[in-house]
Amino acid sequence: MFEKYFSKRIKCTPSSFIREILKVTQNPQIISFAGGLPNPISFPQEELKISMNRIADKFGAKIYQYSTTAGLDSLREYIVQRYNKLRGMDLTLDNVIITTGSQQALDLIGKVFINEGDKVMVEKPSYLGLLQAFCLYDADFVQTDLVEDGLDIDCLKKTLKDHKPKLAYLIPNFQNPTGLTYSKENRKEVFEAIKDEDMILIQDDPYGELRFYDEDEILPYIGQNQSSKNIYLGSFSKIVTPGMRLGYVIADKEIIKMIETAKQASDLHSNIFGQYLISDYLWNNDLDKHISKIKKLYKTQAEAMIGAMEENFAKNIKFTRPKGGMFSWVTLPKGVSAVKLFDKAIKKNVAFVPGDPFYVGINNVNTLRLNYTNADCDTIKEGIKRLSEPLKEI
Amino acid sequence: MFEKYFSKRIKCTPSSFIREILKVTQNPQIISFAGGLPNPISFPQEELKISMNRIADKFGAKIYQYSTTAGLDSLREYIVQRYNKLRGMDLTLDNVIITTGSQQALDLIGKVFINEGDKVMVEKPSYLGLLQAFCLYDADFVQTDLVEDGLDIDCLKKTLKDHKPKLAYLIPNFQNPTGLTYSKENRKEVFEAIKDEDMILIQDDPYGELRFYDEDEILPYIGQNQSSKNIYLGSFSKIVTPGMRLGYVIADKEIIKMIETAKQASDLHSNIFGQYLISDYLWNNDLDKHISKIKKLYKTQAEAMIGAMEENFAKNIKFTRPKGGMFSWVTLPKGVSAVKLFDKAIKKNVAFVPGDPFYVGINNVNTLRLNYTNADCDTIKEGIKRLSEPLKEI
Repeated sequence: MFEKYFSKRIKCTPSSFIREILKVTQNPQIISFAGGLPNPISFPQEELKISMNRIADKFGAKIYQYSTTAGLDSLREYIVQRYNKLRGMDLTLDNVIITTGSQQALDLIGKVFINEGDKVMVEKPSYLGLLQAFCLYDADFVQTDLVEDGLDIDCLKKTLKDHKPKLAYLIPNFQNPTGLTYSKENRKEVFEAIKDEDMILIQDDPYGELRFYDEDEILPYIGQNQSSKNIYLGSFSKIVTPGMRLGYVIADKEIIKMIETAKQASDLHSNIFGQYLISDYLWNNDLDKHISKIKKLYKTQAEAMIGAMEENFAKNIKFTRPKGGMFSWVTLPKGVSAVKLFDKAIKKNVAFVPGDPFYVGINNVNTLRLNYTNADCDTIKEGIKRLSEPLKEI
Repeated sequence: MFEKYFSKRIKCTPSSFIREILKVTQNPQIISFAGGLPNPISFPQEELKISMNRIADKFGAKIYQYSTTAGLDSLREYIVQRYNKLRGMDLTLDNVIITTGSQQALDLIGKVFINEGDKVMVEKPSYLGLLQAFCLYDADFVQTDLVEDGLDIDCLKKTLKDHKPKLAYLIPNFQNPTGLTYSKENRKEVFEAIKDEDMILIQDDPYGELRFYDEDEILPYIGQNQSSKNIYLGSFSKIVTPGMRLGYVIADKEIIKMIETAKQASDLHSNIFGQYLISDYLWNNDLDKHISKIKKLYKTQAEAMIGAMEENFAKNIKFTRPKGGMFSWVTLPKGVSAVKLFDKAIKKNVAFVPGDPFYVGINNVNTLRLNYTNADCDTIKEGIKRLSEPLKEI
C-alpha cells in the first residue's frame, strides 16, 4: 500500500536475492557455501575481552560519548603506519576516514561522486554490495570482463573509449565473487590504460591480507603512489571482527573531507566504543601473527574445497583456485542455469550463491560462488559431495 | 582539484557550519553551549562494564560475527514491549528496525522515499541533521512555523495546500533546536489537518523520555494508533549512550522492509556487539530508574540556565523554558544577527549555535540555540554571564 510513496531508486535496488538464500540456509541441516562469513574461531575473543576492560578503565565516559566524524585518531594512526610500512605509502591522518564497515564506504562514495546516470565501470562479475549501494545513486554500470590474471585489457580499453566512465570499482586482490587476483603485469597494464582518463579509481581490498602463500609478494595497488585519483578501501571485518562494522577509506585529503561531510549526514560517526576497542586490540597485539593463523585456517579450508571439487566434479565444470580470500567461482557448462542448480542443490541440503546478482542486466548465468571460510574441512568435503549429485543430473 | 568529480548533491549539502563551531570550542577555556552532548556522568558505566563481560561470556563469537540487517531480536523485542506498555501501541518485531543512530534513520528514509524535488515539510526552525540528510536526496524543503504549543495550524494548512508535501518531519517532544513541545490539543489539530493528506509523517523523538516534570503526562504521538503512514524514530543516545550509535525506526512492516533494503546497501547492519551490549543492559537494569536520574540532572541544569538568563539578559531578549530535552532557544531583538553575536561571544570564551543552519534559505537570523546538558550548573551560570556581556553591547 506504500508503493506510491517509495522512491524510484529504492524500487530498482536489487535486494532480496542473497537475503532470501540466506534465509533458506538458516536450516541447520543445510551446508551453506552461500555466505561470506569469517570462521568464528578466527575472532580473537580473549584479547578483545582484555581490551574492552582496559578501555573501560582507561578512557571512562569517552568510549560512550559522541565523537568526531572522521574517526578515532589512534585507530587512523594505526592504519596510516600499517599502510606506510607494509605498502610503502606516504599517508597522514588526513588521508583516512573510518566508516561503518566497507559497505558504508561504498554508500558514502556514491553520495560524494555519483549524479544520476553517471557511468561506473565494474568488473564482470562484481561485488553485489557495490551494485546495491551505487544503484541507490542511479549509477549506470558498465562491466569489464575479468580474466585469469585480472582485467581483460582489450575489453577495458573498449569500455573506456565507449563509455568514458567517471568511476571505476575494482577488487584487485582475491576478488569477490571470483577469488581472482590481478597479476603485477596486469596492474601495470590497467594503470597504463586508465592513467590519462578523467576517472576516479576505487580499489576495494577487504581480502588482501588473507594471502595464503607467504612466498607470493604483496602487490602494489593499481597506480599506487602514482595517482591522486585513487581511493582505497580497507576493513577490519575479515582480519579481526566484522560485527564491529569498522572499515576505512584512504584517499586524497580533499576527497576525505567530502566523504566526511557525507558521513556526518549519514550516521554522524561510527560506533566509538568499537573504535576504541579495535584500536586497543591492534596496538597491544601482533596483528600479523593473528592474520597468519587465519590464513593457515582458510588455506586448509580452500584446499579442502578445491580437492573435493577435483575429486567429485566432472571435467567440464571449471572453478577458480584462489590463492587467498574467501571464495571460489564455479563455471558450469554453457547454457546450464545456476539458479536451477540451486533449486536442486537445496533439496540435497547444500547451498551457494548463483552468479546472477553479481552481473548487471543478465540472468540465468552458468556461474556460481562458493565460500569456504565458514565451515570446517569435513563439512566442506561433505557439502561438495552433496553438490556433485545434482551436478551429475544436469 | 576534485571539484569536477563531486556530485551535485554533496556540493549543495550544508555541512561545516556546526563542525567549524565545534572546532573553535575545542579550546578548553571556552564554555560551550554549542553541542548537543549528554552529560558524561549520565552514562551507566559500571552497568555497561558488567554487561560487556556478561555478553562476552554468554554469547562468545556471536557478538563479533556478521548479523542480520534488521537488528538483534532481543533489542527489538525490548523496544516493542516498552512502546506497547508506555505508549499503548500495538507493535510486533516486524515494526522495528535498528539503525546506526537516528541520523542513519534519516538517511535511510531519504533513500526510501525521496525523489529529486519531492516536497518535505519541516518545522521552522528544524533539526540541522535532517536538513543535511535529506539534502543529499535533493528534497525540496518547506518550513512551517512553530509557536509556543506546537505547529502554527494556519501556517500548516497553507503549507499543505500550497505545497502538497510528500513527507513531513516533526519533533513533537522538546524539539531540537527550540526545546518546544506540542500540546495535546495541538497534536489533535495537526492530525485533523493532515489526516486526509497523501503524506508520510515522520516523528523524531530522541528527547521524549527526558521529561523533567513527572506530573506532565506522556503525550501520544500525532495520529498515534490512527495512521499507518506514521514513522516514529527513537534512540538510545540520550538515555543510555550515544557513542554506540544505536537508534531505531518504528513503522508499518511494509515500510520497515524497504528501509531494511536501503540499510543493507548502506552498512549491512549496525554494530552487533553494541546491540548485544545495550540489549543486555536494558534487560538487566531498570531503565526508568536510570532515566529518572538523568532527568533530575538535566532539570537542575536547565533551571540553572533559565535562572541565569532571567538574571543577566535584558527584557527584550526572549528564550524558551523547556520542560524536557536538551536545548533552549533564544530570540534576540529584531535585526540583531546571532552570527555576529557569536563572533563577539567567542572572544569572551563562550559559544553557542547561531540559528542560521536550522532554517532553509535564510541567513543572519536573530535566534540561537543553547545546550545545557553538557556542563554543570556553575559553569552554565558563568557561561550565561559571559554571554550577557556582548549582548549588552548590541
